[in-house]
Amino acid sequence: MPTVDDFHANPSFHAQHSPMGAFFSFTCGRFGSRGGMAAQRGRPANQDLFIGVKDGSRTGPGMLKCLPFFDQADKAARVADAAAQAYLVEQARAESDPAKKPPKVAAYGREQIRRRYGWATDAWTTEDFQFMVYTPFGEILDPHGASPGEMRRALLPAVLARLTIDNSAGKSVRTGFFAIGFHDSGLRILDEGLGEGRTGFAQGRTLGVAGRVIDGSGRQTAGEDGAGGAFAFMRWSPDGGLEDRDNPVHLLGGCPGIGFEVPPGQVRTLELALGCHLEEIVTTRLEGRYLYTRYFGGLTDVLGAAFDESPRIVRHCAALDRQLAESKLNLDQRFLLAHATRSYYGSTQLLDMGGEPYWIVNEGEYVMINTLDLSVDQLFWELRHNPWVVRNLLDNFVRFYSYHDQVKVPGGDPCSPGGDAPSPGGDSLSPGGITFCHDQGKDNQFAPLGHSSYELTDLDGCFSHMSQEQLCNWILLAAGYVAATGDSAWARSQATVIRGCLLSMQNRDDPDPSRRIGITRRDSSRCGRGAEITTYDSLDHSLAQTRNNLYIAVKDWASYLGLVLLLEKIGDADAASDAIASAKLAQETIVGQMTSEGWIPAVFEPGNPGHDSRILPAIEGLVYPLFWARQPHASQASRWIDADGPFGALIAALRRHATTLLSNPARGDSANRFADGGVRLSSTSKNSWMSKIGLALHVCRTLFHLDENGAEQPSPGPGGWTSADSAHTAWQTEGASAYWACSDQIVSGVAQGSKYYPRIVTTVLWMDE
Amino acid sequence: MPTVDDFHANPSFHAQHSPMGAFFSFTCGRFGSRGGMAAQRGRPANQDLFIGVKDGSRTGPGMLKCLPFFDQADKAARVADAAAQAYLVEQARAESDPAKKPPKVAAYGREQIRRRYGWATDAWTTEDFQFMVYTPFGEILDPHGASPGEMRRALLPAVLARLTIDNSAGKSVRTGFFAIGFHDSGLRILDEGLGEGRTGFAQGRTLGVAGRVIDGSGRQTAGEDGAGGAFAFMRWSPDGGLEDRDNPVHLLGGCPGIGFEVPPGQVRTLELALGCHLEEIVTTRLEGRYLYTRYFGGLTDVLGAAFDESPRIVRHCAALDRQLAESKLNLDQRFLLAHATRSYYGSTQLLDMGGEPYWIVNEGEYVMINTLDLSVDQLFWELRHNPWVVRNLLDNFVRFYSYHDQVKVPGGDPCSPGGDAPSPGGDSLSPGGITFCHDQGKDNQFAPLGHSSYELTDLDGCFSHMSQEQLCNWILLAAGYVAATGDSAWARSQATVIRGCLLSMQNRDDPDPSRRIGITRRDSSRCGRGAEITTYDSLDHSLAQTRNNLYIAVKDWASYLGLVLLLEKIGDADAASDAIASAKLAQETIVGQMTSEGWIPAVFEPGNPGHDSRILPAIEGLVYPLFWARQPHASQASRWIDADGPFGALIAALRRHATTLLSNPARGDSANRFADGGVRLSSTSKNSWMSKIGLALHVCRTLFHLDENGAEQPSPGPGGWTSADSAHTAWQTEGASAYWACSDQIVSGVAQGSKYYPRIVTTVLWMDE
Repeated sequence: MPTVDDFHANPSFHAQHSPMGAFFSFTCGRFGSRGGMAAQRGRPANQDLFIGVKDGSRTGPGMLKCLPFFDQADKAARVADAAAQAYLVEQARAESDPAKKPPKVAAYGREQIRRRYGWATDAWTTEDFQFMVYTPFGEILDPHGASPGEMRRALLPAVLARLTIDNSAGKSVRTGFFAIGFHDSGLRILDEGLGEGRTGFAQGRTLGVAGRVIDGSGRQTAGEDGAGGAFAFMRWSPDGGLEDRDNPVHLLGGCPGIGFEVPPGQVRTLELALGCHLEEIVTTRLEGRYLYTRYFGGLTDVLGAAFDESPRIVRHCAALDRQLAESKLNLDQRFLLAHATRSYYGSTQLLDMGGEPYWIVNEGEYVMINTLDLSVDQLFWELRHNPWVVRNLLDNFVRFYSYHDQVKVPGGDPCSPGGDAPSPGGDSLSPGGITFCHDQGKDNQFAPLGHSSYELTDLDGCFSHMSQEQLCNWILLAAGYVAATGDSAWARSQATVIRGCLLSMQNRDDPDPSRRIGITRRDSSRCGRGAEITTYDSLDHSLAQTRNNLYIAVKDWASYLGLVLLLEKIGDADAASDAIASAKLAQETIVGQMTSEGWIPAVFEPGNPGHDSRILPAIEGLVYPLFWARQPHASQASRWIDADGPFGALIAALRRHATTLLSNPARGDSANRFADGGVRLSSTSKNSWMSKIGLALHVCRTLFHLDENGAEQPSPGPGGWTSADSAHTAWQTEGASAYWACSDQIVSGVAQGSKYYPRIVTTVLWMDE
Repeated sequence: MPTVDDFHANPSFHAQHSPMGAFFSFTCGRFGSRGGMAAQRGRPANQDLFIGVKDGSRTGPGMLKCLPFFDQADKAARVADAAAQAYLVEQARAESDPAKKPPKVAAYGREQIRRRYGWATDAWTTEDFQFMVYTPFGEILDPHGASPGEMRRALLPAVLARLTIDNSAGKSVRTGFFAIGFHDSGLRILDEGLGEGRTGFAQGRTLGVAGRVIDGSGRQTAGEDGAGGAFAFMRWSPDGGLEDRDNPVHLLGGCPGIGFEVPPGQVRTLELALGCHLEEIVTTRLEGRYLYTRYFGGLTDVLGAAFDESPRIVRHCAALDRQLAESKLNLDQRFLLAHATRSYYGSTQLLDMGGEPYWIVNEGEYVMINTLDLSVDQLFWELRHNPWVVRNLLDNFVRFYSYHDQVKVPGGDPCSPGGDAPSPGGDSLSPGGITFCHDQGKDNQFAPLGHSSYELTDLDGCFSHMSQEQLCNWILLAAGYVAATGDSAWARSQATVIRGCLLSMQNRDDPDPSRRIGITRRDSSRCGRGAEITTYDSLDHSLAQTRNNLYIAVKDWASYLGLVLLLEKIGDADAASDAIASAKLAQETIVGQMTSEGWIPAVFEPGNPGHDSRILPAIEGLVYPLFWARQPHASQASRWIDADGPFGALIAALRRHATTLLSNPARGDSANRFADGGVRLSSTSKNSWMSKIGLALHVCRTLFHLDENGAEQPSPGPGGWTSADSAHTAWQTEGASAYWACSDQIVSGVAQGSKYYPRIVTTVLWMDE
């Protein structure tokens, strides 16, 4: 019995079926849309998928009945009428010009398909067959200590799928097929190197599909020449390839496929391996190739390994499905986590850079390399599975993408320390410190060392620098890593950087200790005449500027506490108490901004347009101490989130802020809920990010015990947010959004940016509620 | 003074500027169309090119005045009005919403541009600048004997260009630029590895442009930081990259470029290297990488070498231009040859296959590998430049893409030798012999050994087998190679194959010597129920079937003579005289088909629809003995084309045939001229192939001394074909054809197939007239 229920909402959405670290996906699921296999691409591939069955033998005249995974499938002939049509077709063909062939492909309609979307399986069932894609995930071992066999299992750059046709009650043979209509060149048949009974096709040296026929226990049952084996074809259409037994393959064709026949009285399954293998150096400046090339000799090796591993893969996926199905999450929440998981892995890329592993998460459709403000959100996922990748990221940022700046003294401040050189913008400068780049490059092109691809100078909005926030992000990643692993050897190796981070944090407040207030008040000299921005770059004034910003202020506070964790780990008690002191200043400053209405302005500048915004990300910074408190190596953090602890005042203020925002019964403009019930991060913007909602909801429920209306939650767990949850599902599955296989930036319920995005795995925190 | 005249016809056509053997081109020239740099692509790239000048400094507000090499350039602002517009633009911008920027790019109109199209240079001149592209060509040495330096010079996978701005009479600074608007990802700035004073940009590891500023003598004049140096930029538009000096480069941008400033009173040139470097294995089944990777370490090495070699490149191109300008060819003929040369090299690919060189010419837009019926036409070009590539091709066909078949006994022939197994089509079979595949694969994917990508079984038309014609082609290539080189060691090494070819030729006539008539009458068993076709696959009945076909019959005759050459070279006099005997039978058969009207039916079957067609390719086979007769190692061939020699009857009959066809004053249907004066290969088809016209005209003029009206040509040389020549120019330069940078298959004056094609280099034969 399947552990995954029939999908409860609109099943017509793309999912990014991806292995781990290969920056590869097999994307499909939205009706009438192309998808398919792609490597190193920040959007779905452009392939028509023909997956289905026809009545009769492979060369018979029957109509092909397909899942609607091809362009215009929603306008194609309907399967319900296929049998009748097939008859008419034959008649028509006999009577009229044979060149005017009617279409031979029909598509199932929505009501003829059931979809089950688990954590690691995605299954479509029609009355004729079941098609199921398996995407196991789990630990990627640190290659320094792992065996080649372990690495092969973890890094297998392939996805497994099975097409099962139950013809046990049938009276005649049926033919199943999996074919891809490509719209670019380099196609070939995999006629060697796969072993007996297996066949397949490929695009160049990099993308390939192999197939074999198996029985119910997963055992391969037939050779290519034996009865019931898999056969390859390639013509300009899937029907053309099946019908012409004399010429099933034309190398000029654009639609290769794999087929199999199912005799009456039998059940047969076509097992498919869909994989990639890029053998060459794929990046520039820092030159790396995929780490999997150390363990796989080529495409056929990859595809063969998927078959060898298929029983384990299927078991593993079932266990993952079960784990999610047995969680406290409701159906919408399960969907969001399962959807986010796939989209995350589709963006992951593990390289071998001169003998060392190099972990990358690409930024969805933008394909920026290791965007640091995404990394800090993906931390929670990565620490569950492979903490070493977080360490790898931290090290790579220090080595290649850190820099030292000065900071700009707020203009005209008579008390600012004098004697600094004027900045390019005419401001005077004071000491800054170490910080980190927004990202490491784009589309496999590493940016100049010490510079991101995103940040420009002299700007006030999008594309300005995020020097303060990226400094916080590095600290929070490091603190999370140490809290989870207790890796004090690593912390000691970074002692200079950690102490430098504290100084840099404080200098962005004020270099003069007596004048500090615990939050960021100075912009990096890298901004030139411009000003620093936050990761919410395209939201609105409430989250644009970094200075005197509520969201950043709470993140500053959390970062000081993160530094406490790290400084204690390296035994620097003096610096740790210095950091605590700054955290306390931050608390004081933030709490002091509380309005009489029970919320805190987004920007602490009364004349600023952001002063009137009510932002839920105010509470985002709380997620870090909340997370640390549950880790084995950061016991002190539980006091920091204790209502009676040293930061009780801040916790109380932010709880009051969140309660005020959520308990506002209004929906739409000026509220923190959209009309559809979805969560609105800023009361003054139509923009919302699902990943950030994931964090905010976790804090609301776990720390504040609030339901979606700001009331006390009756029982622990992720419940009490039903209307929000169901809106969030619709954001991903309805309309144009459904093409993008999990998007982050939602404008009034539609994915408008940050599409095909990895960051929504913040929702994994819900599993701990 | 330039040796190349201003282009005399429509200058708005793409040219494929390509180095040798790199399967790379920089394509540009058609107004309002995209082009640019591409490797391994059978069509122009999809890049907008912004090449031009703006008045004022790099960051000034001036309008960019560009060559019209970008999408919609024909609809962009016109340069004539640019100065006025620039003023208005500034006013408008100041007054209105700055987000509503008016366009800042203007394009020169057709009447503002002069183009000069030489054999190895392509120059555009406006009142403001000159842009010139250099594509030298010549010998590629056999790598077994050449030095690395020689190979670097021959295989340099880059094209050189120069943008010169004469501001000697100017009063203020002007800024020149070369920028590319990409529509795909992976862009970066080449900020390291090029050396001082040079900068550039790249797409990934494979495509790149570098620039430097040089003086009139080609000497680099300035460093990046010095006055007048080249600078890089990259934003979303060329004007954006020039204007923003604070942020000239955004790695998220899609339009990288190189600029330079020219102070008043000065002339400066931006020298550009446009190149590629693909380091990895690029093919499948037979696995090869580019041979140039043995000599170049990477993209920056390639681009730097172009600069190092630039004086030699410029001299070499000037010499090639002069050679063509001083030839007897008229302007149209010069254009066709120069155009064909570029398109040929754009399809060439020299690989290193396990330590051995592997020569490939890809088939234009179809990208089939070494299509053998193209190879035989490209022979004349290749023997002029690097005969070893012909030998390489011959060897690779024998080793990987030859096969042995049987042949089908014509149905119901009571005299056919009995006892053979019935063929799949029910015919009985008789012995066949060795022959060769149509091609070796497609799009870098080698076909299964012994099989082409093109040929299928059981067909009568397109995609059927060409077993007989490819056998002829191998023989004719081998004969041409030996005639030109006298390489008897190679001929001896192929003795078995050569003798096998004779047997195979004769068996396709009749295995019984007493029943032979010298021409092909049996189809290969590979055809199954179908029939063999010729290389003129998509023409009409006149050139579709191989059996009893006039075109094939004459090619059979030439092939027997080619075998004579080869057999004499290996000292097999008996076999040679056997081959001569078959050639004589062929003569007898062909001459016997002469009609009373003085032409020979295309198909020797009175009931066949091709029986009424009058085809010029009847005379194509004569080009081989005509060619051999001029080579140093085939003196006997001059007798074969002598009107008083052993084949005088055939020569006379074909001369009469050609005269009849050409002297028909009709144009259009049923004639051998189109309404526009262009040559029509078959009186019953609107299809014509320019490469084949090149051969037919060479025979008409050189052997028959005919002008385009079938009259005796008054003086030797390529004259007397003016109206045809000018039509042939229009076929390449007018309308949609002009996008495809030299196409072969022309339907009623428009390129409809065989676009972006290499084969038109048959026109090089005209240089020998």
